[in-house]
Amino acid sequence: MNDLAIEPIIRQVTAILGEAQAQARTGRTRPDLSQLPTGGLARLIDHTLLRPEVTARQIEMLCLEARQWGFFSVCVNSAFVPLAVELLRETPTLVASVVGFPLGANLPHVKAYEARQALEQGAREIDMVIHIGALKGRDLLAVFEDIGDVAVVCHEHDALCKVILETSLLTPEEIVIGCQLARMAGADFVKTSTGFNEGGATVEAVALMRRVVGDSMGIKASGGIRTLASAQAMLQAGANRLGTSASVAIVSAEQGSHVSSDSASSY
Amino acid sequence: MNDLAIEPIIRQVTAILGEAQAQARTGRTRPDLSQLPTGGLARLIDHTLLRPEVTARQIEMLCLEARQWGFFSVCVNSAFVPLAVELLRETPTLVASVVGFPLGANLPHVKAYEARQALEQGAREIDMVIHIGALKGRDLLAVFEDIGDVAVVCHEHDALCKVILETSLLTPEEIVIGCQLARMAGADFVKTSTGFNEGGATVEAVALMRRVVGDSMGIKASGGIRTLASAQAMLQAGANRLGTSASVAIVSAEQGSHVSSDSASSY
Repeated sequence: MNDLAIEPIIRQVTAILGEAQAQARTGRTRPDLSQLPTGGLARLIDHTLLRPEVTARQIEMLCLEARQWGFFSVCVNSAFVPLAVELLRETPTLVASVVGFPLGANLPHVKAYEARQALEQGAREIDMVIHIGALKGRDLLAVFEDIGDVAVVCHEHDALCKVILETSLLTPEEIVIGCQLARMAGADFVKTSTGFNEGGATVEAVALMRRVVGDSMGIKASGGIRTLASAQAMLQAGANRLGTSASVAIVSAEQGSHVSSDSASSY
Repeated sequence: MNDLAIEPIIRQVTAILGEAQAQARTGRTRPDLSQLPTGGLARLIDHTLLRPEVTARQIEMLCLEARQWGFFSVCVNSAFVPLAVELLRETPTLVASVVGFPLGANLPHVKAYEARQALEQGAREIDMVIHIGALKGRDLLAVFEDIGDVAVVCHEHDALCKVILETSLLTPEEIVIGCQLARMAGADFVKTSTGFNEGGATVEAVALMRRVVGDSMGIKASGGIRTLASAQAMLQAGANRLGTSASVAIVSAEQGSHVSSDSASSY
């Protein structure tokens, strides 16, 4: 992956989408999202719980852990945004909601609608899935507009828009195209994986994504990150945010304590 | 499962939701949805393709197969409803769209919004996923209202509302509760599975669902139905609709031809 010539691909996407981008409404001065925030590993982690059978009780536990360990955010399905916002009020931990998750193959405006609902309930970050099949079919305008719709709604609410590419289903060329589309559409982060389809984050995919977006965007590695070693490998490769359900185990391992990986990841 | 005493559970759900149901807007004379339609096995099948990386080209193939074999519907992600409707115009095959799929843990109104978009594009059936975690946490009103929202939108568009319970994640008691909620909320079908979370349709779950809904609703078995034998077992147990991606193999097997299961299920 890492000897792929990305410049011709980026130029081609830019040429195809140039006019659409000129009309896009998301132009704003972007903060530098490539740096690692200060405050240790916990402040890089979106503490995540997305399984469909999760109950309010389990979301309460998630938020409790997030407060206790100081995770950057909790990442939940949109139904649980109101509960998580209430539980994390006046803490440094934000609430992130997934939208169009985990398949991404929704009609136009559906993801933006779900994002707006979540943002109005207090979510401060939105993790949206692209329409993967549209990218594979090279309907770049559809992917671009879908991302742009959500990015606009996020920025109206002073929130960040993260774009899940599902890299395990993409070729290296498609990863480059997806990153460039997300950047041109005004999104803030690109993110590797949902954790629900085949495969998760890889060092190769993260490194390739960083080559494309440079310091213009954040990169979130997610999917299959269950150990301190894999978390560190992702950061080394260029990620500056991690999505995982094994957050407590990872941060405990970093601090040399002995919470077992099993117990921390059993919900 | 089949010695479970369902009457006390049904009475309890009815008591809890009675007042909410009295206010529900979905009251209409329901057609008899328990009977098998005429026209052979193909007319019982929702020909299904929901993987996130599916392209427009593959949806074209799905619709071509549906025309050729006379399947009851194609079942697609909402992004592909316009294409499928166009390709199946003036054929007996309907277009069904999934919504809130496959996790179901969306904020209120998100599923109804996606359903409305799909119906306005010509979908004639909606397969929605319940909020499984809310059922498990016994927030019955939330599950009921979520279903009712979608059922109302469907009926406004003269379309059917199918309610996916994800039976593999539920206890037998929860399956009974889910069926009763779907019935009280005015939905038309209960459906076993998304095919994306653990496990698919079982004979036991279908039989239990038929015990609860009697002849008041249709039952769609889906998830893991890949052979003629399993299709027939589901119908025997009480299903009157099948959701599968192996439709061509199943119908070919019924007709004694020799399309291999592998080739028919390879997309």
